[in-house]
Amino acid sequence: MFKHQVSYRVRYADTDQMRFMYYGNYARLFEIGRVESLRTLGCHYTELEKTGVWMPVIDLQSRYLKPAFYDDELVIETRIPSLPAARILFEYEISRTDGVVIHEAKTTLVFLSCSTGKPCRAPDLLKSALLPFFH
Amino acid sequence: MFKHQVSYRVRYADTDQMRFMYYGNYARLFEIGRVESLRTLGCHYTELEKTGVWMPVIDLQSRYLKPAFYDDELVIETRIPSLPAARILFEYEISRTDGVVIHEAKTTLVFLSCSTGKPCRAPDLLKSALLPFFH
Amino acid sequence: MFKHQVSYRVRYADTDQMRFMYYGNYARLFEIGRVESLRTLGCHYTELEKTGVWMPVIDLQSRYLKPAFYDDELVIETRIPSLPAARILFEYEISRTDGVVIHEAKTTLVFLSCSTGKPCRAPDLLKSALLPFFH
Amino acid sequence: MFKHQVSYRVRYADTDQMRFMYYGNYARLFEIGRVESLRTLGCHYTELEKTGVWMPVIDLQSRYLKPAFYDDELVIETRIPSLPAARILFEYEISRTDGVVIHEAKTTLVFLSCSTGKPCRAPDLLKSALLPFFH
Repeated sequence: MFKHQVSYRVRYADTDQMRFMYYGNYARLFEIGRVESLRTLGCHYTELEKTGVWMPVIDLQSRYLKPAFYDDELVIETRIPSLPAARILFEYEISRTDGVVIHEAKTTLVFLSCSTGKPCRAPDLLKSALLPFFH
Repeated sequence: MFKHQVSYRVRYADTDQMRFMYYGNYARLFEIGRVESLRTLGCHYTELEKTGVWMPVIDLQSRYLKPAFYDDELVIETRIPSLPAARILFEYEISRTDGVVIHEAKTTLVFLSCSTGKPCRAPDLLKSALLPFFH
Repeated sequence: MFKHQVSYRVRYADTDQMRFMYYGNYARLFEIGRVESLRTLGCHYTELEKTGVWMPVIDLQSRYLKPAFYDDELVIETRIPSLPAARILFEYEISRTDGVVIHEAKTTLVFLSCSTGKPCRAPDLLKSALLPFFH
Repeated sequence: MFKHQVSYRVRYADTDQMRFMYYGNYARLFEIGRVESLRTLGCHYTELEKTGVWMPVIDLQSRYLKPAFYDDELVIETRIPSLPAARILFEYEISRTDGVVIHEAKTTLVFLSCSTGKPCRAPDLLKSALLPFFH
């Protein structure tokens, strides 16, 4: 399994009038987890797109265990539990700096050809970057 | 079961560089579905909050069947499948005007006392508004 | 001068922990004002883009006179004070339903060729739609 | 004058279908510039709020010189040109890593008492932090 951590500071833009991070704004955190975890593997999302592949999210499952508040410094842990084939699964665990897990989520993404809009296989660039973590 | 429909126009603010509505922006649509469906029952979210109750989302499940595009006029169908107790479940089906369903989602919300931050029972205002739909 | 009004309901997604609409979220309201005002002239933004023209904002001036709160039903008045040439100016006045003006803003947009990314003239579709208001 | 720099990575969440950062999303960058510049002075926004003071934006002026694109790493330079009194002015210059300035903006904020909602003077915490830069 591949794991990666990145931190995120909650902004005023993220909060709502309950003083919580708005439930829709966690999607940005998952995106940051995905992109930054792949970047550490030398696998830049912009380069994946240049190979003609888009990766839209087709499934999202999110559990809000505790609220996140303004100025909290969160840790986003991203995991890729298996090698991608027609799809790629990302799992996320978001914690406060005191270690308390406040959020768990999963997203499934597919690979689409930018030109045809049809599903395609995972790019070699991505598979070869992940291969060392799965043997 | 209680059902309600409201329309939503996709804005530039909602799109991303794939030309799709960004996956995090559907949460706004679910919020609109929840609030406008309750409003038709005479149950205004601002009045629920005035009774000292917040309703944070604790679980979200989203299936992105087809993309939504700029200027699409979507129909958000919101369903409340059962009477609320400690929690309330909302189900959503988002369609294009040609009737094609592009998104399905579920959210679970809890009731929190604004003053203590602790879970509480569903407000009577909400339960009595929904009661006629469940017998 | 061309004038148009459209209403907007403030959502939880728009609020921040001051309980105000977040200052960055007014941009969505201006966008709605622009697009819906042009739509009433039969001038659809998607059709303008199909003629190969993008209209990015190059200047924004915003005055926050009073806060907007959750569930407020705002009226966005959009004005086009002059015929577009290399640029188009939109002015906005946002009011509560009691008539109190809470926000004033101006945006300047340019016309860009989608293919070259270079500035171009205002599309004929847009100019001919606006012409009757300026003589 | 007080100056500060912080970097920002443009996310998919920030882009729109022109492939540009959506014009409304720059407000988040200015917020980051304000908060992180004050943090380096030991002046935490959360602590300012604990002294009973809110700082809403009352004026925003933004010039979009060049677009920002997905995954661009931007530098936000924030300047406070004068000591705050009833208001505080922030100026921003946003550059790409190649040094090209793509955006210039100014925001004016006022100080509001959280309890009364009325204007108040700049908190001493903030004034004493800035004083060394203005003599």
